[in-house]
Amino acid sequence: MKTRDRIIHSATELFNDQGEPNITTNHIAAHLGISPGNLYYHFRNKEDIIHSIFEQYANHLTASFTPWRNGENNLQDLMGYLDAIFYLMWQFRFFYANLPDILSRDELLQQKYLKTQEQMRTTVFTLLNSLREGAFLTANQDDLPDLGHAIKMVVTCWIPFQTAQAANARITKALLYQGVLRVLFLLKPYIHPQATEQYQQLTQHYRQLTQSVE
Amino acid sequence: MKTRDRIIHSATELFNDQGEPNITTNHIAAHLGISPGNLYYHFRNKEDIIHSIFEQYANHLTASFTPWRNGENNLQDLMGYLDAIFYLMWQFRFFYANLPDILSRDELLQQKYLKTQEQMRTTVFTLLNSLREGAFLTANQDDLPDLGHAIKMVVTCWIPFQTAQAANARITKALLYQGVLRVLFLLKPYIHPQATEQYQQLTQHYRQLTQSVE
Repeated sequence: MKTRDRIIHSATELFNDQGEPNITTNHIAAHLGISPGNLYYHFRNKEDIIHSIFEQYANHLTASFTPWRNGENNLQDLMGYLDAIFYLMWQFRFFYANLPDILSRDELLQQKYLKTQEQMRTTVFTLLNSLREGAFLTANQDDLPDLGHAIKMVVTCWIPFQTAQAANARITKALLYQGVLRVLFLLKPYIHPQATEQYQQLTQHYRQLTQSVE
Repeated sequence: MKTRDRIIHSATELFNDQGEPNITTNHIAAHLGISPGNLYYHFRNKEDIIHSIFEQYANHLTASFTPWRNGENNLQDLMGYLDAIFYLMWQFRFFYANLPDILSRDELLQQKYLKTQEQMRTTVFTLLNSLREGAFLTANQDDLPDLGHAIKMVVTCWIPFQTAQAANARITKALLYQGVLRVLFLLKPYIHPQATEQYQQLTQHYRQLTQSVE
């Protein structure tokens, strides 16, 4: 791995494990066993590193959410979406944990973030619409933007909400799968009668994951 | 008003208007035209003032949510709840805006907060149950805790979510009424057919408020 990539990789790991506010560029350099000067050859400062991590986040966002196939395979589509959400929350959990603070320090990053959010709004709407056309959801089309908004809010807020609700809450994979179950719950009242069994399978699948992962 | 109460009042106002992290005890003293020494006679430090504001918040919480009357008057019960939520979000918006940060600095406050949240969980459940018994909601009783959780999450996260979603988002009353509409949307799929009209009245009422307030 190139030094630049190793820096991004280590920084993500340290931010995730110890919280972004507690990590300086010196910590990152020390963790890699390189001099601060070497790190500064690749990145101007910590914000610069965060920008590169954000680019990875944005790339994952584009890559993980493949276009939905008009309700051809609802269960796989929804599961693919939920798995991608879980992956992003876990891989970039420091970002979710401290979002308003990180964005308030960096106007350019805020703009980039808003662009990805716009993209996500379209993605969620397309998925919900595909599930509706595939007779998996019974929601009116008029309700889909609001439903998508409610889902996006759970995804964005799950980590900070948990952090506020428990003293010294540790962000574990199990906790994030609970977040996935909260997203599924929002769909529950809209599930088409003929899709009830599939919905229960999905719920069961993620409930098991909350128990089997650390 | 006693000096002690004036300090609490001014601090709340300044925190709400300019953000809690940007306000020091010196700002509060200057705003009141009293000496820092006079302020320190009443409060040891800023955390101490925040504790007193939190007590007001907790008192409002207890006072605003009166016991529900077993579905005797669903519309008034739900409206009373939504109005109380709006009032708390507006009156203590600095607290919602910066919750994880404020709580992480103060273990005692975190404990007090968790106690109020426990209380809120019961309150929301009692309300939802009353609405179910009054044939306003059709939800299964098993779903009520999850539905209550989803509502609590919107209320807790609405302000930080908005702050992250828009550059320099201003927290206005209109924005908070939009949050109230998001709570109402969560109930929508559970509305009893005979309560549809009442639900639409409520939605209309809060939608008008998003347009008529600043």
